[in-house]
Amino acid sequence: MRRLRIAMAQINTTVGDFDGNVKKILGAVDTARSAGADIVTLPELAVCGYPPEDLLFKPQFIQANLDSLQKIAESAKGITVITGFVDADGDIYNAAAVLHFGRIAGLYRKIYLPNYGVFDENRYFRAGSDCPIFVIGGVAIGITICEDIWYEAGPATVQANAGAEVIINISASPYHAGKGAARERMIATRASDTVAIFAYNNAVGGQDELVFDGHSVIMDEKGILIARGKQFEEDLIIADLDVESVFRARLHDPRQRKETLLAEQQHWRQTRTVISETPFSSAGHPAIKQQADVLDLPTEVYRALVLGTHDYILKNDFNKVVIGLSGGIDSAIVATIAVDALGSENVIGVSMPSRFSSEGSKTDAQRLAENLKIKLLTIPIEKVYMAYLNTLSESFTGAQPDITEENIQARIRGNLLMALSNKFGWLVLTTGNKSEMATGYTTLYGDMVGGFAVIKDVPKTLVYKIARRRNQMAGYELIQESIFTKPPSAELRPDQKDIDSLPPYEVLDPILTAYVEDDKSVEQIIALGFDKATAQRTAKLVDRSEYKRRQAPPGVKITTRAFGRDRRLPIVNRFKEW
Amino acid sequence: MRRLRIAMAQINTTVGDFDGNVKKILGAVDTARSAGADIVTLPELAVCGYPPEDLLFKPQFIQANLDSLQKIAESAKGITVITGFVDADGDIYNAAAVLHFGRIAGLYRKIYLPNYGVFDENRYFRAGSDCPIFVIGGVAIGITICEDIWYEAGPATVQANAGAEVIINISASPYHAGKGAARERMIATRASDTVAIFAYNNAVGGQDELVFDGHSVIMDEKGILIARGKQFEEDLIIADLDVESVFRARLHDPRQRKETLLAEQQHWRQTRTVISETPFSSAGHPAIKQQADVLDLPTEVYRALVLGTHDYILKNDFNKVVIGLSGGIDSAIVATIAVDALGSENVIGVSMPSRFSSEGSKTDAQRLAENLKIKLLTIPIEKVYMAYLNTLSESFTGAQPDITEENIQARIRGNLLMALSNKFGWLVLTTGNKSEMATGYTTLYGDMVGGFAVIKDVPKTLVYKIARRRNQMAGYELIQESIFTKPPSAELRPDQKDIDSLPPYEVLDPILTAYVEDDKSVEQIIALGFDKATAQRTAKLVDRSEYKRRQAPPGVKITTRAFGRDRRLPIVNRFKEW
Repeated sequence: MRRLRIAMAQINTTVGDFDGNVKKILGAVDTARSAGADIVTLPELAVCGYPPEDLLFKPQFIQANLDSLQKIAESAKGITVITGFVDADGDIYNAAAVLHFGRIAGLYRKIYLPNYGVFDENRYFRAGSDCPIFVIGGVAIGITICEDIWYEAGPATVQANAGAEVIINISASPYHAGKGAARERMIATRASDTVAIFAYNNAVGGQDELVFDGHSVIMDEKGILIARGKQFEEDLIIADLDVESVFRARLHDPRQRKETLLAEQQHWRQTRTVISETPFSSAGHPAIKQQADVLDLPTEVYRALVLGTHDYILKNDFNKVVIGLSGGIDSAIVATIAVDALGSENVIGVSMPSRFSSEGSKTDAQRLAENLKIKLLTIPIEKVYMAYLNTLSESFTGAQPDITEENIQARIRGNLLMALSNKFGWLVLTTGNKSEMATGYTTLYGDMVGGFAVIKDVPKTLVYKIARRRNQMAGYELIQESIFTKPPSAELRPDQKDIDSLPPYEVLDPILTAYVEDDKSVEQIIALGFDKATAQRTAKLVDRSEYKRRQAPPGVKITTRAFGRDRRLPIVNRFKEW
Repeated sequence: MRRLRIAMAQINTTVGDFDGNVKKILGAVDTARSAGADIVTLPELAVCGYPPEDLLFKPQFIQANLDSLQKIAESAKGITVITGFVDADGDIYNAAAVLHFGRIAGLYRKIYLPNYGVFDENRYFRAGSDCPIFVIGGVAIGITICEDIWYEAGPATVQANAGAEVIINISASPYHAGKGAARERMIATRASDTVAIFAYNNAVGGQDELVFDGHSVIMDEKGILIARGKQFEEDLIIADLDVESVFRARLHDPRQRKETLLAEQQHWRQTRTVISETPFSSAGHPAIKQQADVLDLPTEVYRALVLGTHDYILKNDFNKVVIGLSGGIDSAIVATIAVDALGSENVIGVSMPSRFSSEGSKTDAQRLAENLKIKLLTIPIEKVYMAYLNTLSESFTGAQPDITEENIQARIRGNLLMALSNKFGWLVLTTGNKSEMATGYTTLYGDMVGGFAVIKDVPKTLVYKIARRRNQMAGYELIQESIFTKPPSAELRPDQKDIDSLPPYEVLDPILTAYVEDDKSVEQIIALGFDKATAQRTAKLVDRSEYKRRQAPPGVKITTRAFGRDRRLPIVNRFKEW
């Protein structure tokens, strides 16, 4: 029986860390070889990390990547290694190398370059035009890279038509809520459409605003799941692929493999390269099939935030973080995420009460710190605030108190957090959520201060959901109930409540999703049943806050459209729907 | 004698301001008609403004643009109007419409979509594939858009080969120092290569970080300048094109127009549409030829900064700005630019002396404000600084004074400027230069606070040059000599000088240009003759400051590579050359 043992290395690389990445890749190769795998695959651009962005304009970066590939090739003995790297030949390509017997035995260059959302691949790469098949261990294999399989008539179809029984896809696919499930559906469809086994190897880890969620999968030729890697963790997924059943299924398949190529496909050159005719070692081993469970949605989002935060901190060579604890839900969930990412001993909370802070807020901050077992500093801002008012009194002569005085307080807190950061080397985590970032209900250089904005892409209503879910995981009130039940407030003036300035979050969040993520017009939002004035006011707030978002720290993308590279709007913009 | 009178409207549109843009376009059409022009041209995407970025994902934005085009078409009577707009037909295109007798008589869709530097056009547009010729007033005309003529075998070549005597190019070409001169050379070469008259209509005005510099030109078929529009100002350039001389030149041209098309060109469909056979009105008028002078380089940069600042402020509906005046050259030039952009009455200076401020700095700020005739507020920061030290003393127990205390002072100033901004509606102008932004010699949330960072792309050495040039223009010491001669200092600790932390700017700036703008490796920079340790230290400073730049306000791009959309580097990045 023809069978191929594949090992998919779902690894967490770091952009530009060639030594570290090579070490990690070689480790995976060794483990896979020991497990009797014929092939080991690695993610897209695993050698240099993804996305390298404008580092790709540095010839010395490209060269370091080629040198690293050479090192990996030398270790490819007794196993075939398929890894992502930057190929250079006149221009540069997002490519996969087939490494065999110590040399580069084959090459595939990504054909579909994504240039939407967070992606800028047309900025860097030339698209490939070759559609090769590699015979490895006697099995005809097509290699594709990420975006390539998101098109129904992409290179995988051409490869399968030309005889490929297994389609390998190496990816670095950024997470958003629910993407893993959508990916599984898509891959299952591709597999059954082409009557081929699909082995999808995703990256895992955080890189600036992106989280790669792992969740690699193998689908058989009927679109049935054979193996699934863990979400948000490194994993080595090993499975035996029953290639004979592909051959049998194709004989029985009523859909004849079409010889007619679509116009686009006609430009792709088809080749066939024999790498090895017989499997290395899988014959004697027992069949292997690994299957991780799939997380529910709030857990998935929570894990993405933990991984994104963990990797941003550590990959930037920080180890401790400091967080302003207001006693509200946003800072509570950020502190909890930080503790899960870094451990209690690496998280410092700071309570910075003002004359407007309620007793409840102060004790809630205190109790949360106890629950999370983190150190809490208490630094009242009153003296500094008085000094500001005093210093500005002459300039402000005749002016009434307004939002200025509220912002001064928020900015004092920002300055204090940064002072602690500068003095002790702690990175400041920002606690603003997506509803605030969208509407500008936040103080630039105040509560927006920080190196990483953990929940900047999490709408307030989802913040509550993931906090509830985290408490369920704990099995007790890790975040105490009083934090959930108190009305959200910035506490920057007497009796202030969010609801004085914003619509209730249950109304606001769906409007924001429609406007920001789905590009719905205000008219269409009203037609969905929302109050006209509320819809208009929300759109106005979003449009007018672009300048603030441009100066915000990065944070984990968890929705289909995050603020940041994902959404590029001009600040100067007179297009108004309000 | 066959002749065509062309009017090129070098207008300043605003993104999304459909009513304003249409009004401006109709005004230009009227003026051109009165001047007896056969054709009036307008810049790339003049209808919606350039670049509209992700507004292009809003169907309602596309529709408003189509409605606006219809209004312009109705006014196209007695003259042919060629304007940029977003064409929609299944997908969207960066297009030019030929408007004639009240209707859309022709269409050209941009073939070369730039997707490098500040450009993301592949993110939005589908590329055109048609290469039409329009007969207007009896003259065969090819239309191209911006990037199209930057390729030597682009659509203009095909159009000229097929008989086009005049090539119109409508552009929105972002400025960098010296680009106008490079553009003139390129257009002259294209014109003489194709033996065609080139009429190049650029946009003018500021849009976020970009400045469009105008400087439209017409070159005859020998590559000789016929007309030139003003730099950095709106202009209507009218010229009579002697089309017969193109015909004559082609008869005499030893280079036969090649019939062989390059592979890429073969995909472009060639068409010929007759719009009008006889000129409207130019017959009886005297020949017209307009030629503006070209500015020297420091003046050019200065004007770009003034225009960029003016437009950012006013297009965002601000009218007054506030600037922290330290007594140094950076804040001096920013205040001068602001005064030139907005008038003295709209600029407020703030002196915020600390215990470390020298007498010279304080009197220099004072005298500069007098020279510029701007209001000066003086707000000492000592009391607030003392309150911070006092408030933090417990948390800082046992720690030595370090950069923390310096940053606290810078952030107090930031908070004070923002308080004035919030209270009085003044936009804060940031005063950091490119050398500081590159090396991170700047305090996040401190001196980086502001809505617009006027000189963020101007290296320190160039700051001095443009300040000197501005004084020459004034004919007296508008910026007094003492500001030029004092050693640069942040004055955040006793006797601090920039040179204690950074290499001298004469050494630093060329290293920065090589590293940041030219992607030179550290090794190559050392090979250029720079000290090894200095080159390595500089590269390290640049790499490690990426996180600060990500939170910086926008500012005018004046170099070939500005920090911002132009340079997209990851924050998490372990690629080190130091």
